Amino acid sequence: MTLLVQKYGGTSVADLDRMRAVAEHVSFCRRRGDQVALVVSAMGKETDDLLRMAARVSTAPPGREMDMLITAGERKAIALMCMALGEVGVPAYSFTGSQAGFMTDTNHENAKILEIRPERIRQTLADGIVPVVAGSQGMSTDRNVTFLGRGGSDTTAVALSQVLGAEMCELYTDVSGVFTADPRIVPQATKMSSISFDELLEMTATGCPKPAVRSVEVAHNYRVPLHIRSAFTWEPGTLVVEESEQESSMEQPIIRAITHDKSESKLTVVDVPDKPGVSAILFRALADAGVNVDMIVQNASEEGRTDISFTVPTEHLERAEQVLDDGVMTELGARAMVSDRSIGKVSVTGAGMKSNPGVAATMFETLAANGINIEMISTSAIRISCVVHTDRTDEAVQHLHTAFGLDA
Amino acid sequence: MTLLVQKYGGTSVADLDRMRAVAEHVSFCRRRGDQVALVVSAMGKETDDLLRMAARVSTAPPGREMDMLITAGERKAIALMCMALGEVGVPAYSFTGSQAGFMTDTNHENAKILEIRPERIRQTLADGIVPVVAGSQGMSTDRNVTFLGRGGSDTTAVALSQVLGAEMCELYTDVSGVFTADPRIVPQATKMSSISFDELLEMTATGCPKPAVRSVEVAHNYRVPLHIRSAFTWEPGTLVVEESEQESSMEQPIIRAITHDKSESKLTVVDVPDKPGVSAILFRALADAGVNVDMIVQNASEEGRTDISFTVPTEHLERAEQVLDDGVMTELGARAMVSDRSIGKVSVTGAGMKSNPGVAATMFETLAANGINIEMISTSAIRISCVVHTDRTDEAVQHLHTAFGLDA
Repeated sequence: MTLLVQKYGGTSVADLDRMRAVAEHVSFCRRRGDQVALVVSAMGKETDDLLRMAARVSTAPPGREMDMLITAGERKAIALMCMALGEVGVPAYSFTGSQAGFMTDTNHENAKILEIRPERIRQTLADGIVPVVAGSQGMSTDRNVTFLGRGGSDTTAVALSQVLGAEMCELYTDVSGVFTADPRIVPQATKMSSISFDELLEMTATGCPKPAVRSVEVAHNYRVPLHIRSAFTWEPGTLVVEESEQESSMEQPIIRAITHDKSESKLTVVDVPDKPGVSAILFRALADAGVNVDMIVQNASEEGRTDISFTVPTEHLERAEQVLDDGVMTELGARAMVSDRSIGKVSVTGAGMKSNPGVAATMFETLAANGINIEMISTSAIRISCVVHTDRTDEAVQHLHTAFGLDA
Repeated sequence: MTLLVQKYGGTSVADLDRMRAVAEHVSFCRRRGDQVALVVSAMGKETDDLLRMAARVSTAPPGREMDMLITAGERKAIALMCMALGEVGVPAYSFTGSQAGFMTDTNHENAKILEIRPERIRQTLADGIVPVVAGSQGMSTDRNVTFLGRGGSDTTAVALSQVLGAEMCELYTDVSGVFTADPRIVPQATKMSSISFDELLEMTATGCPKPAVRSVEVAHNYRVPLHIRSAFTWEPGTLVVEESEQESSMEQPIIRAITHDKSESKLTVVDVPDKPGVSAILFRALADAGVNVDMIVQNASEEGRTDISFTVPTEHLERAEQVLDDGVMTELGARAMVSDRSIGKVSVTGAGMKSNPGVAATMFETLAANGINIEMISTSAIRISCVVHTDRTDEAVQHLHTAFGLDA
C-alpha cells in the first residue's frame, strides 16, 4: 500500500465546496488503494483576516498570543475537512500540530520543528482512518502553541512525509506545477514535468513562490519525494526527484527556469576599512536583530577602503537601517549608508552551469542588449542572479526566457 | 490581595471595541489591588457561525470534529483579549482549556469536567500576569479536544474559581443582574441585589437564562460566591450568597422571582398499567437515548391503569417519540401517545414556601382568575411550576409578578 501525504493550501480549501472536492479526491485515492494523510492550511484569506484583527487591537501583539490566534484558522479547517470526508464515507480524525506530535522551538510566529512524535498519526493510519493534520503548527518545548510561519503547511507536510516514510508528498495548490517562469509575466512559460531538489531549492530561494522555500530545504536535505500539483484541475504536476530529466547531452548546461523577486531592498554601507572583522561585525549585528540578509557583495578595495552592499526583505529594511544607525556605522567607521527600495532580482537556474561560463555571458549580454543595467551579481553552482531596477525586472525575465530557449 | 475570576460572555467581547472596554476594566481592578483571572467566550455570534458551517458541510458531524471546530472560537477570543490587555499595560497569557488543566470525560459537544490541574494558571498569577482562559473547553481522558457545551464558559469560570479559591467569581454579561421576571415581559421587574444559591438554582432550572444552570449547580455544590453583572454598564449586579437578604419577617415566604420557559414540549403516555417498574422502563429508555426529561406527572390510577405525562426540551421531542415507538409503548402496554408542543412553564421561586401553603393557593387562584388553564404542576421546597398553554405564558408571568407583590 502506498502512503501519500497530501497538503492542501488555503485556496484549495477556501470554502465548503472546495473541501467537498478535496474529500472526493481523497476518496478516489483510497479506492485506488492508497493510504492518505492530509495536511491542511487555514481557509482562504482567514490568516490575513486574523492578522488584521490583531493589528487593529494591538500595536505590538506578543508572539505567543499571535500564535494562539492564528492557529485557530487551521483548527477550523481540519475539523470541517474531517466532516466533509465523513460525508463521502471516508473516516477522518483531525489533529492539531501539538496532537500530531510536532515539537518546536520557542520562537513564536516563526517556530522551527525540533522533533516529530507521530505515534497518534501512525495509529490512526493503521486503523484505516485518514489523519487530517493542521498545517504550520506545533507545541514548543515550554508547552506553548507555536506557528511555523506563513507557508509553514508545506513544511509540515514534508516533515510529516519524512517521519512517516511516505512514498510521496503531494503539495496541492492553485497552480498546476512549477513553471519555467511566472506565466503572468512570460505567457509562453511552460510547466516542468520534473525538477531536481537542488534546482527547486535555488528557484524557490530566488522568487518561485510555491512551494515554500523552507519546505524545499527539508525535502532537499531528507530527499522527500515531492509532487507539486493542482487541487483545481487534479492533472499531474511537477515531480521533484534526485536528478531532473535531461533532455540534451550530459555535459551541456540545462537552464530550467527564470525566477524573479521584487520583495527585497538594497543597502550599501559606503567607505568602510577593508580589513578582517568588518563583515563579521555588520552581519552579526543584523542577524541578532533578526534581519534576513540575502545577497552580499563587497566591491574591490580602493586605498584600503571599500563598500559593502547587501539585500534584505523590504519589510526588514527599516530594522536593518536602525541596526546600522545604532552604533554599527560608527563601529565600522563607515562614511554613509544608502538604501534602495527600487530593485528586482532576476535568476537563471539550471545544472551544469559552473563548468559552462557561457551561461553567465549569455545572461549579461541579454540584459545589456536590452539596456538593462546590472546593479549586483551573485552566483551558486546552479544559479546566477542579477539585481536590476525594479521597473525593468519583468522585461529582464521575458528576454532571458527567450534567450535561454525556454519559450514553448 | 483579592483574587477575582472574571468571565466575559460572547456579547461582552463581541468586537475589538468591547475587548478594549474589558481590558480597561481589568486594568482598573488591578490598580485597585485585585488579582484577576479571566475566562472568555467566543466573540459574539462566532459559535453560531461555526455551527452553521458544520451543518452545511456535514449531515451528521462527528462530535470529535465539532469540538475541534467550535473551540477555535474561544482560541481566537483569548488571544485577541491578551493583545487588548497588553495595549493597556496589563501583561496577559492565554490558555486553552487543555493548557489551563481542564480534564474532561470523552462526551463530545457536552463534556463534563473531571478534574482541574491549574498549576500553569497559579504560576501565571504568581508571576503577576493575567491568565486568560478559553471558556467551555478541555482535554478528554483520551487526549482529544472537548467542548463543554453552550453556556459552558460560566461553568469554566465557576470551576476555576473553586479550584483557585477565588474570593469572587464575577460573571459579566449583557444584562445587569438577575431580575424578578424577564423585563421584556414584565416591564416593572426589578434587579435583585442578592439571591441564595438554592433560589438561583431553581430559577435557572426553570427558565432564567443567565447564568447557565450547570454553572449554578457547581457554584451551589461548592458554595462559590458569584456576582452576576453587566460588562456594559459595569454597575453592581446580583450577588449570589448563602442566604439571600430577607426583607420581611423570618418565617414568611419570600417570593423572589417569576420565571418561565417556552422551550419544552409535553408527552403523555396514555393508559398504562399502574404497577411497579413501568416508570423505570419508560425513563431508563429515554435516558439511554439522551433525552432530558424535566417535569414528570403521573395521574391518579383508575381501574389499575394510569397516564404518565412528562416534559422534554422540544428539540428532544422527536427522539423521545422515536424511543416510545421503538418498542417501549408495546412493552408498557400503553394505548396511545400524545405530544403537545404548545406549552409554557411558569415558576414561582422563593424560600419558606413549603411550610406556607398559601403560595400555591395564590398561584392557582391568580391563574384561574385570569382564565388560564393549568395542565401540569410540580413543586420543590422553594419552587412551584405550572404548565400552561404557550400563548398564555407571558400573561401568566405578568399576573403572578403583580399577585406576589414583585412589581417595582
